[in-house]
Parts: sequence; structure tokens; C-alpha cells
Amino acid sequence: MYRTKNCGELRIQHSGENVTLAGWVQKTRKMGGMTFIDIRDRYGITQLVFNHEINDDLCEKANRLGREYVIQVTGVVSERSSKNAHIETGDIEILVDNLIVLNEAITPPFTIEDNTDGGEDIRMKYRYLDLRRNNVRQNLILRHKMAFETRKYLDQQNFLEVETPILIGSTPEGARDFVVPSRMNTGQFYALPQSPQLFKQLLMVSGFDRYFQIAKCFRDEDLRADRQPEFTQIDCEMSFVEQEDVLNIFEGLTKHLFKKIKNIDIQGDFPRMTYADALQYYGSDKPDIRFEMKFVELKEAVSGKNFIVFDSAEYVGGICAKGCASYTRKQIDELIDFVKRPQIGAKGLVYIRYDADGSFKSSIDKFYTQNDLRSIASMFNAEPGDLILILAGEKSKTQKALSELRLEMGSRLGLRDKNIYKPLWVIDFPLFEWDEETKRYYAMHHPFTSPKPEDIALLDADPGKVRANAYDMVVNGVELGGGSIRIHDSKLQNKMFELLGFTPEKAETQFGFLMNAFKYGAPPHGGLAFGLDRFVSLFAGLDSIRDCIAFPKNNSGRDVMIDAPSQIDQSQLDELNLAITLK
Amino acid sequence: MYRTKNCGELRIQHSGENVTLAGWVQKTRKMGGMTFIDIRDRYGITQLVFNHEINDDLCEKANRLGREYVIQVTGVVSERSSKNAHIETGDIEILVDNLIVLNEAITPPFTIEDNTDGGEDIRMKYRYLDLRRNNVRQNLILRHKMAFETRKYLDQQNFLEVETPILIGSTPEGARDFVVPSRMNTGQFYALPQSPQLFKQLLMVSGFDRYFQIAKCFRDEDLRADRQPEFTQIDCEMSFVEQEDVLNIFEGLTKHLFKKIKNIDIQGDFPRMTYADALQYYGSDKPDIRFEMKFVELKEAVSGKNFIVFDSAEYVGGICAKGCASYTRKQIDELIDFVKRPQIGAKGLVYIRYDADGSFKSSIDKFYTQNDLRSIASMFNAEPGDLILILAGEKSKTQKALSELRLEMGSRLGLRDKNIYKPLWVIDFPLFEWDEETKRYYAMHHPFTSPKPEDIALLDADPGKVRANAYDMVVNGVELGGGSIRIHDSKLQNKMFELLGFTPEKAETQFGFLMNAFKYGAPPHGGLAFGLDRFVSLFAGLDSIRDCIAFPKNNSGRDVMIDAPSQIDQSQLDELNLAITLK
Repeated sequence: MYRTKNCGELRIQHSGENVTLAGWVQKTRKMGGMTFIDIRDRYGITQLVFNHEINDDLCEKANRLGREYVIQVTGVVSERSSKNAHIETGDIEILVDNLIVLNEAITPPFTIEDNTDGGEDIRMKYRYLDLRRNNVRQNLILRHKMAFETRKYLDQQNFLEVETPILIGSTPEGARDFVVPSRMNTGQFYALPQSPQLFKQLLMVSGFDRYFQIAKCFRDEDLRADRQPEFTQIDCEMSFVEQEDVLNIFEGLTKHLFKKIKNIDIQGDFPRMTYADALQYYGSDKPDIRFEMKFVELKEAVSGKNFIVFDSAEYVGGICAKGCASYTRKQIDELIDFVKRPQIGAKGLVYIRYDADGSFKSSIDKFYTQNDLRSIASMFNAEPGDLILILAGEKSKTQKALSELRLEMGSRLGLRDKNIYKPLWVIDFPLFEWDEETKRYYAMHHPFTSPKPEDIALLDADPGKVRANAYDMVVNGVELGGGSIRIHDSKLQNKMFELLGFTPEKAETQFGFLMNAFKYGAPPHGGLAFGLDRFVSLFAGLDSIRDCIAFPKNNSGRDVMIDAPSQIDQSQLDELNLAITLK
Repeated sequence: MYRTKNCGELRIQHSGENVTLAGWVQKTRKMGGMTFIDIRDRYGITQLVFNHEINDDLCEKANRLGREYVIQVTGVVSERSSKNAHIETGDIEILVDNLIVLNEAITPPFTIEDNTDGGEDIRMKYRYLDLRRNNVRQNLILRHKMAFETRKYLDQQNFLEVETPILIGSTPEGARDFVVPSRMNTGQFYALPQSPQLFKQLLMVSGFDRYFQIAKCFRDEDLRADRQPEFTQIDCEMSFVEQEDVLNIFEGLTKHLFKKIKNIDIQGDFPRMTYADALQYYGSDKPDIRFEMKFVELKEAVSGKNFIVFDSAEYVGGICAKGCASYTRKQIDELIDFVKRPQIGAKGLVYIRYDADGSFKSSIDKFYTQNDLRSIASMFNAEPGDLILILAGEKSKTQKALSELRLEMGSRLGLRDKNIYKPLWVIDFPLFEWDEETKRYYAMHHPFTSPKPEDIALLDADPGKVRANAYDMVVNGVELGGGSIRIHDSKLQNKMFELLGFTPEKAETQFGFLMNAFKYGAPPHGGLAFGLDRFVSLFAGLDSIRDCIAFPKNNSGRDVMIDAPSQIDQSQLDELNLAITLK
């Protein structure tokens, strides 16, 4: 070992000990005849002292050290005269009597500090230097701990971690599969899994009973801000369970992580909200319930007053922002600009100010009397000083826009504290989604998702009304994961295929393999997958999953550090019997 | 839950309890007016009883159950009159009063028993049924436990598990990389990592200090019996360490696994053997030291007696098989046939029998007197009753053949008990290998492997003699893993490139990225990787790593269960701008 102690562990009680440390030069300061150097490693920072009067040569050597030099020092731990309460080693320093330069360093392109001067691009290019920054490293330490605690909890619950293959087969609907040409099987390709779904269901057929895996998954799609071409899931499946069992286990896992990682006791059961309620009251299937500000539907209440915008709208809904009646014209204009942004897409915003004197001021005063406005306000339980914000239009688009406005108001009002966590189960998802374009139903989750037993009768009569045994876990408006109880009855499965417009032949081609496995005795089963990247981001208070991934890719799916993907040699293409056909 | 207990947990003290079980029908037996059914799940087997006299209908229903039906039963736990000591639930049975068929099953293509009637091919095609067999499942449970205990130990030792990317860049020497076309970056490819080597060294530059990962690795090469295109490594790297530190940590991990998984205390330090000694005494860099039977070099002793085979051979060496002088002509012929197999490649075998009466009988009696033979025998410390076996020829080929013969004799003599484990460090590997064909040196491990400091002076004078800080862990003749201390000094690294025949330009193209990262302050570092598949196979006593992989591929890299790889749609190829160019 090049050290006897690390740079984070020395305390006042070590005074007088002779120690050897190794690490990076964080900072050098000359003061009078002394040179102070902060030496840094993963565990912390320790102050080194070189005294010109005691050892001039050594002090000169120390003065020549540059930032990020790798050094090894030996010396005596000594109590500091002026202590530093900000760092754990702040009570001591090392009076150095030997210094070895293990490696020199050229000047890094940005400062290795929490608040670095480096922009995102340069930090990603030199990610190996970015990872030296304490806050970035802490995110990855958090990730390690969360993965490990997840494994501990699931092992305790009798889950077995089983590795499923990364080189699998492409499915006919796998348009977003990454494919991998096989050299040994000319003209044939593997695919990388978008999830271990098929294999985990097979493991249930195999009687594994409780499976999990912290698994890499892959999707070759245009990347939005919070997506990566490779991502990590906590993937689980259980046999002989009903929805309630799955929710219990993973509520337990989530509580375990909150307790072990953040020392937060989440009391009681997680609240549950139906998908229908989530849309009605929050306009989203992942509501942030750190604050109320529920939607109030106003269509009936506001119709028939000759205000054409409301009269012609499919949906009119609003929220009540407590204490915001004092908003200035400028602030209200900001909100109008906010809802009109293309990504929100509202045409405008109606407001009703409930002034402190009990009167109302609104942007629709021409159409609505003070009494009309009072009765609208009463639907929100509004009080003097509140501000009501209303959107109108096509139902689902307007709900979505109102949801964004609600989140914006929550942020403005400081109701979205990153240190407060409000988990929620969203349940009773619809089994099908209707697609206007192709005029048919699609499976909202996947075609193996089980309908609620009490809704099976509706399958023929009104498929759109059938609810699924499907569930999402949402924390602070972030969907951490979701899953479903699967169909294990082949008659019901065939019925599903029929409703989804599969001919028996097409169902066979696409799902025959799994259906065939099911013929040999499939147990009732269901599962869930959490996004590990998102889970870590949530705990770390990050805005992007990228910051909790050691070597992330950018929005073009590119690793700018190693410059991948890249062209490959013609010889490699030849060996794979492939040619590039640039258009 | 579909059950209140599992099929492995009921004992005599549960007698009288009303329980619900769910699982698969393992076996049905009718005896008089009773029907007995064994119900199976992951946890065990429980006997169910149906009594014709008590409930005729239920008994009839039970009689109609087929093998592998999935059922749910309720009944009372009752002490058996005739107990079964072979299974843990053998003291009890369930007097069933309710039976629900959760799913029917068609007859499986082979029996779901430890000793199945299914051959390898059919079992692989129906791997999801093969995995129902207790012994196969136990291998995967073992794998889960070993991975989990590895994580526990390394976490305890301050290692952080960091996920490195699966989609990386192809290297110019990456002829065996799997490549992945990128849809978003036309004409460009990712590669799948053969190991996380680059990234773990970068993490050391980043100051992560102690990294590990249980990582999937990929190699697109012709598969030998014990290789898979995707395999799993316990990959580790440490900073500020010397070889001794790495050996200590991973000796500790290995002992931890032996203790926790197999309850074996391995006493004392693992023996260490130099690469040179391993070749000289065992003809292999992964000697099985469960038994001695060391090579004795005979070239000098046997030369000059007009036996042309020995006189003309570069190398003559032998082993002494204790107590085998009684081998019959037939048995000796078997050994001759064994060494003449193409994969062993010897031309013949010389034997010397040291008979019980003190006389010698050999296949070279024409050339060697009794005294000659006695003095040869004394070199082996042979005793009456022993059999000496001698091979001759080109040195390295002959040593290899003699190594195989030694292992064969060890097996014949019962010296290779699978329940005895003899770990060993093989150290001091040569830094370079000379290649006769291209007349140049290659790095034996990789070009970043550090030479032993005391051998650096030999780099110019005699590169072939330079030993590396490289090490392998070998248990029972299986190489579990290996690693090295890396070069962190750029001058030494450049010297290495020069010796390996890289021009500065070529070194830059191929390794520039890592070299550049090193310029920013690389700590001294080194590491190791264990093959998890091999480690599990060793503990499970398996002959092939395939049996400890849930969904393995065959020797053509094919998953015969899902039939991958396979052709993909033209539309997928088009979107990737690829064409297949079949020759």
C-alpha cells in the first residue's frame, strides 16, 4: 500500500501518529515561510504543512507541485491552531517530512470543485476528471448504496437475482431494438433487450417464484432530456401473487431505501389513486402530491354565459393558487406566456383574483358577474387573497396543460421541496388505449397485462372501460416504476389478442414462443420494474438521470468522451458480411 | 397470495394447521382408495392426500391431474404414518379438502427430475422446463448467493460498484468485438465491451480508489466447450496498491466465498507458485495441486544411451504414478492411446514399472540397464509398486502433453476429489511472449501491465526474461481469474509501446485516449477479474459453465430456445442503412 491512512479519516485523536497519505493536490497556499497543501482522495481532504525553516528543500519541492499532481507524503498528525469546521479532518494537519511525486498532472480543463467553471460539454468530454468532483462522486456512491440495499432487501424477501441474456432475438415489433450482427451466423442478428420481460415470465414458468435483476436495458430511439440508450432497471417478477402482494413487497423496498439511504421513515401505507382520479384531479398519471391544488371541473358551472371560449370547449378546468391574488399584471402575463409555450400548448389563460376585500377581478369580467365569480370561487373553496387559474379546450390536451401550470404554481409557491418525498401508487390503469388514427385499441402496458376480474365482462361490450391490474409507483411526480399482473389463462390471452386485432397467425408469430411455454403449466404471476437511474436521481435531487450515470451518453446517443459510436474497419464489416448503404 | 405456506416449509409442528399451497404436480400415485400427489415449488415438495371415502368427487378431480399441472390446494397438515426421511417435509402430508386447477399443462418433452430422460439438445430448447429441475435451479441459487456474497464482501472493503457502459467504441484491434449499428448515427457502430478494462482504469484516474462490478462482457469468437459469447466477470480495480495488496483482498474474497457458501475454512495463506515453476513442475500455468505428481526433467539423465527418441528430444520429462506398477498391458495401452490423441499430440509414451520385487520393467529395456532404470526411478523418489511415465519431444508441446497425462493419472487414482479445493496464486508471469511467426514480442496480459521493478533493467537487454506484476488465481486446475498492476508512469509506458513495436503514432491511435487521461494525474493502480461463471461452476462441481447460466448459448453462439440470432426485417436494415453482402 502506498498509504497507511486515507485523506478522510484522521481526527484529533490521531495526533502524534506517523502516517503516510496518497492522493491528489487539491490546492496549494504559501503563507510566510509555510506552504499548505490540501491533499484529496475519495474519502476526503487533509491539510499538509511544509515549513521552510525546518526543511527548505522539501518546502521548495512542495511549492513546485501543480494542481492534481498525485503525491505520497509521510509526516506526523498534529492539531491545527486554526481549525476548519467545514471538513471532517479540519482539526488536524500533517507536518510532512517526506514527499514523493507519484505522477505529475497537466492543468485540467476545468476546476475540480463542486462549483466548477466547466460547462456540460467539456465536463462530458473529460468525464474522468468530472468524476473527481465530490458532488459527482457522491451521486455514484449513492447509486452503489441504493443498488446494494435493493439487493439486500430482495434477497431477504427470497428473491433470486438471475442474469438474463443481453444477446437475445429481435421481435417483429422491435423497431427500437438495437441489433448485433453475428459473425458466426452470417446474415443473422441478435437484439439487445428493451427489458427482460420475456425471460422473467419464462423464469416464472420455470418455478423460480421470486426473481429480480438489476438489469441493463437498451432502446434505440430519439432521446429526450431524460432518456439514455442504455438504462438500468430493478426488474422483478413473482409467482402465485395478486396485485396486493406485489404492491406490498415494493412498497416495502421503497420504504427500506428511504430508511437506509436517507434515514426517512415513511409512515403508513402509500396512498393509492386510480388512474381516473389522477387524470381528473391532476391531469397526469404521475401526479406530484407534495401539494394539493387539485383540478376543479367547471364546464357546467361556466357554460351558458355567452363566453364562447368556455361554451365551445370540451373541457374547462382550473386550479386555485393560495395567496396569489397579489400577483401583478407582469406575473400573470408570465403565466400566460408559460401556458402558451409550444410544449404546453394552451391558447390562453383565464384568471379570477379573489381580492382581500372580498371582491373579484377576472379576465372574464365582461361575461361573469361578481356573483358568478363568487360561486366559481366557492367550488375551489377559495378564500380572499387566492388566485384562480382556468384553462379550456380539448379535454386531454387541456388537462395536460393545466397539470403543467399546477406544477409551475407549486414551484413558484415553494410547495415542491426536494427534501420532502410523497410516494403514491397509481392503480387501475385502463387495459386498452384507443388510437384515433388506426381506429383500434392498443394494449396500454403490454398484451400480457391482466384485466381486473370484475371488468372481464366488459371486454366485449366496452373494452375502453376495462381496467387493468396495472400499477405505477410515483414519487413527487416522477414515475419510478410500474408493472402488472400478467394473464396466465390461455383463453383470456387469446381473447386479448383478438381484441387487439391479432389474427391467430399473427399472435402465433409474435408471441407464440411465450404462449407455447405457458402451455406447460404457467403459474399466476406479476411483477414490476423500477428505473434505477430515476430512483437515484430522485434521491440525489438531480434534474437529469445523466448525472447519476458514470459514463452517460448525450442526446444523440453519443459518448463524447470515448467518441462512440464510430466508424469501423472495412475488414470488420467484411467479416460480418455487411455493407453500409448511405442514402 | 395464492398460498399461506410454500411447499418446502411444513414440519411436524405444523400438524393440525389449515394451510393453502400452490405449485406444480410432480407425481400422482393411486393406492387403494387414496390418491397421493407430490406438489412442487421452488422451496420443496409436499405430499397431498385425497381420500376416496371422504370426498369422492375431489379424489376424482385429483386423479385427473396431469404432470406439471399448476394447482392450489387447501387442507390440514397431518403427521404421516410412513415418513419419508429423504425430504424435509417428509414427516407430514396435507389432507386436502379443496383443489383448484390454476393452469393445465401438456406433457413436458422430458421428465422434470434430477436424472431426467431428456438429452442436452431438447433440454436447451425447452430450457424453461429444464430450469424446473431441482439440480439446475440449485446452480442458479448458488450463483445468486455467490454474486451477493461477493458484493457484501467488496462493499465491506470499501469497494464501490460502478456500472460502466455496454455500448462503447470499437478499438482498431477489436476484431472480436460485437458491434452495434447506431440508427441515430448513420454508418457508425458501438461495440460491446470485451471487458470494462478501459473504464475501470479511467475510474482510478477519477479517484474512485476501489471499484468493482459484476459485469457482462462479450466476445464474438469461435466458442470452445467452456466459452460463451456473453459471460460475467467480477471485475475490480484498486488505487495506491502494490501486487501484495491486490492478492490479499482477493484471497480474502475467495476465503469469504468458501466460508459463506460452502462452509469451508481455508487455513493460512494461499500458496504461491511462479509461472516458471508452474511450467517446470506441472507443464501448465494453472496446475491442479490437489495432488503432487510433479514433473521430473530427465533429459540429462537419459541422454547418451543410444535411444534416439530421447537423444533427439529437446525435452524429456516424466511423472511417477504411485502404486500403478500393477497396470496391465491394456491399461498402459489406454494411456498410450490417451497421449496420442490429436488434442494431446504426443508420439508415444515410455513407461518404467518398478515392480514389487525391486526389479524394473520398461518399454526401453533395450537401451537402459536395470541400474539405469533404478537411477531414473530414484529421481522420482519412486518406490516398488510405482509406475513412471515419460514423454519426450519439443519442450512446450511435451510439457503440455505431460500435464494432460498427469491430470488423467490424477483422475484415475482418485486424487481429484471435487469436494477438495486447493487454491493457488500463480505469479511472476512473463511480461512478453515471443511470437515465432511475426518475430516479435507481444504483451502476455496487455500493454498496460507493469514489469517487476527489479526487472526493468532487463527491458532492453533481454525482454523475454522480464517478469510482470501479473497474477492468476487457480483452484483445482481452473483459472478463476487474474490481473496485474498497471503501468502509471508515462515514460515506462512509452518504453513498453516501443518494445511492442508500436510507432508513437500507432500507440497514439490505439491507446491515445487512455494515455491522455493519464496525463491528468494517474495514481498507481492494479486490479483483477474473476470469471463468475467459472467460479460458480467450480463450487457447483459442474463440468461446463453452461450449466450455471440461466439461458446459455450453444457452441455456435445460438440460443436454441428463442432461436437467436435470426434474420431481421428489411425495414430494420433500411433504417440502419445496412445491407447484407452474402458471398
